[in-house]
Amino acid sequence: MSDFDLVISGAALVVTSNSKDEILPGANIGIKAGVIAAISDEKLAGNENFDARGHLIAPGLINSHTHLAMALLRGWAEGVNLQRFLEKVWAAEGAIMDPPTAELGTQLGALEALLGGTTTALDMYLFPEATHRGAVEVGLRHISGPIFFDFAGLDGLEWDQRIAVARTWPELLAKIGGPEVPGYLMPHATYTCSPAHLRELAELAHELGYSIHIHASENERENKDVAIQYQRTPTELLSENGVLARHVVYGHGVHLSDGDISKVSSAGGAVAHCPGSNLKLASGIADISKYQSAGIKVALGTDGCSSSNDLDMWVVMRLAALLVAQTKGPEQASAKSIFRMATIDGARALGIDNLVGSIEVGKRADLIALDLAKPHLIPLHDTYAQLVFAAGRSDVSDVWVDGEQVVKSGRSTRIDFAELKRAVTSRVGELQAKLG
Amino acid sequence: MSDFDLVISGAALVVTSNSKDEILPGANIGIKAGVIAAISDEKLAGNENFDARGHLIAPGLINSHTHLAMALLRGWAEGVNLQRFLEKVWAAEGAIMDPPTAELGTQLGALEALLGGTTTALDMYLFPEATHRGAVEVGLRHISGPIFFDFAGLDGLEWDQRIAVARTWPELLAKIGGPEVPGYLMPHATYTCSPAHLRELAELAHELGYSIHIHASENERENKDVAIQYQRTPTELLSENGVLARHVVYGHGVHLSDGDISKVSSAGGAVAHCPGSNLKLASGIADISKYQSAGIKVALGTDGCSSSNDLDMWVVMRLAALLVAQTKGPEQASAKSIFRMATIDGARALGIDNLVGSIEVGKRADLIALDLAKPHLIPLHDTYAQLVFAAGRSDVSDVWVDGEQVVKSGRSTRIDFAELKRAVTSRVGELQAKLG
Repeated sequence: MSDFDLVISGAALVVTSNSKDEILPGANIGIKAGVIAAISDEKLAGNENFDARGHLIAPGLINSHTHLAMALLRGWAEGVNLQRFLEKVWAAEGAIMDPPTAELGTQLGALEALLGGTTTALDMYLFPEATHRGAVEVGLRHISGPIFFDFAGLDGLEWDQRIAVARTWPELLAKIGGPEVPGYLMPHATYTCSPAHLRELAELAHELGYSIHIHASENERENKDVAIQYQRTPTELLSENGVLARHVVYGHGVHLSDGDISKVSSAGGAVAHCPGSNLKLASGIADISKYQSAGIKVALGTDGCSSSNDLDMWVVMRLAALLVAQTKGPEQASAKSIFRMATIDGARALGIDNLVGSIEVGKRADLIALDLAKPHLIPLHDTYAQLVFAAGRSDVSDVWVDGEQVVKSGRSTRIDFAELKRAVTSRVGELQAKLG
Repeated sequence: MSDFDLVISGAALVVTSNSKDEILPGANIGIKAGVIAAISDEKLAGNENFDARGHLIAPGLINSHTHLAMALLRGWAEGVNLQRFLEKVWAAEGAIMDPPTAELGTQLGALEALLGGTTTALDMYLFPEATHRGAVEVGLRHISGPIFFDFAGLDGLEWDQRIAVARTWPELLAKIGGPEVPGYLMPHATYTCSPAHLRELAELAHELGYSIHIHASENERENKDVAIQYQRTPTELLSENGVLARHVVYGHGVHLSDGDISKVSSAGGAVAHCPGSNLKLASGIADISKYQSAGIKVALGTDGCSSSNDLDMWVVMRLAALLVAQTKGPEQASAKSIFRMATIDGARALGIDNLVGSIEVGKRADLIALDLAKPHLIPLHDTYAQLVFAAGRSDVSDVWVDGEQVVKSGRSTRIDFAELKRAVTSRVGELQAKLG
């Protein structure tokens, strides 16, 4: 019997994202029961072997803010700002979204994410049971959770029903199975959840031991609207109502005042920086260097496909780095630091660095292999610059989540794309017929 | 005998970039002697047939400013501004660049460009004969030309020798062959070519009927340095010395004053907008909307790989669009207009719209096929948004230049990548040994 279930052997480079940022040439990785059990210069024996010569092995990327099901609305709301965007998207969702459609859209999004090397996503959407089922089926480490707003939305749930969903969420996670994920509650935003409701969620999160994911300060208009209604910033509302006492991940967090920054930082909070969506909706450029200096954890995200318009974390890394270079000076745009935001620092921001984010013994085996035999990846003078400024989704050839190979030579091992495409085309046809 | 040498049949969509921006579902394209001879809903008979079902056919992309040979220096000068960047790059070039190395680097760059759907590049570099030979061998429509600066550079040429090269350039183009290209003279910049030399080049360009490609107003420091030396903007120098009387393409053109804009516009000049390189070197964000409103032709470019760090025109399109959205408002960021900048408007800017840039009868058959069977390309609500905000280099499966298939199912038909990689690795090893 072999020591390992799987050995990934002889990689050209293993980029670890460990605390020393080690890059190990020729290392072998032994995986047992979904966990990285050995990293060694010596040959390892496994029941299965992946010959990683000519490949770079890296931790799977972490998408810290998205709405996977909105893959169905890719390109639906073009040339509009955030508020007009929401109107168009909500109309489309009203026309077709239900649990089976959300599950279908999430399968599409999860498939795209995995093929591009994203192994974990923090995903806020309606019908979270359906979306979670869809993502888990495709093999993604999918952090979902009950979503909250004051009004009965498209899902028709009253507030108390949402609370009831949240109370059964732990059971539901256990029932659906899939890669281990932390619990999250997902109030949509401070302009859609009242202070009293925010307080209730903070208490519930405390009771369940859950984190919170919420859109906050995405653009100036949001800050202004919230100020008119409450004479407070979104962060002040979250702080006063106990939400910041929990571990919180902000979606976007583009416009935080110095006071906000100090509050989020003291609370150990995190910002999911979504530069692609932020630029496209003219929401602004988050000053992530300032946030990081103040101690806020910064992760990277795509946002949903109706504003991004894809789930490509390589483009997000490149954008994040280019914006730092332009606004802070090229000396500040460290490709290594950006790559960490998409791996270990992203994991830390989401509170899952005990599970994933780096290639270290004891971590879950969420790994990606990049095929280096591409003209745009030679020569190799600077590994992190290559990853952030030259590599792309299509360089990802193979992907493992919990040690299971979910992408093999660029194809899902879990789901048939042609079949999924037929289902998507059919469902979307109805949307185009209704609103197109 | 068939009517056509090649028929590209039954494409899901043909995005023409013609004057009506027509998108033709199911169209067939007949090609004869390298030229688009028919576009029809009817079936066409060809000696060869490319079954384009499931594919989108578009004009090959036009990269309006690059230095292909610098593919060898990808990732060599990270985290530095333009002036420090130039110092580092020039040192590396000094260590290894010679005609065979420039040819090798250009082959690598041309291969990367073609695989990613770029069929034409305006390429400024040392040893232009060698680079042109390299690019033509790989199958690119390669617009090169003699390069000029006052001092004997790495190529060791004195000014008069550069002029002599220029006088023999037409013969050289004829000798090397390859896809038809216009003649260009390439003075490096106004800070490296004296006013007297600029005047001489303007006259020579007039005599030869050539266009001019020059770096101009790339960053504020350049403008300041030129102002200190000449009390003029780069554009004023170009105007006063007759250069603007020729057709001119500016590399970068980030910082143009209102007076500059008016001069470039009246002269029918063009700007090669390189948003990736400009952000990375913190050169600034060119106000291309303003330029276009004033009548300046705007094309898109990657710049060289030491600052971009690849030759991916899809990323450039996305960046260009996102920057317009953020700075001018999402309503102004038309994906169609950006796609035109990479195709027909780019061709117009380079003075080659008689040859390429659109799919129209009579144009050269520079075409690309995108495989639409990708999760990130479904559903399709908005074709231009899909091309600009979701598609990428790896979606390009097949590429034709002058009707010749130079990329087939993602592989060059002209050159062996493994062999090229060995040569690159060996040559670059010497650089790393010397300066690494």
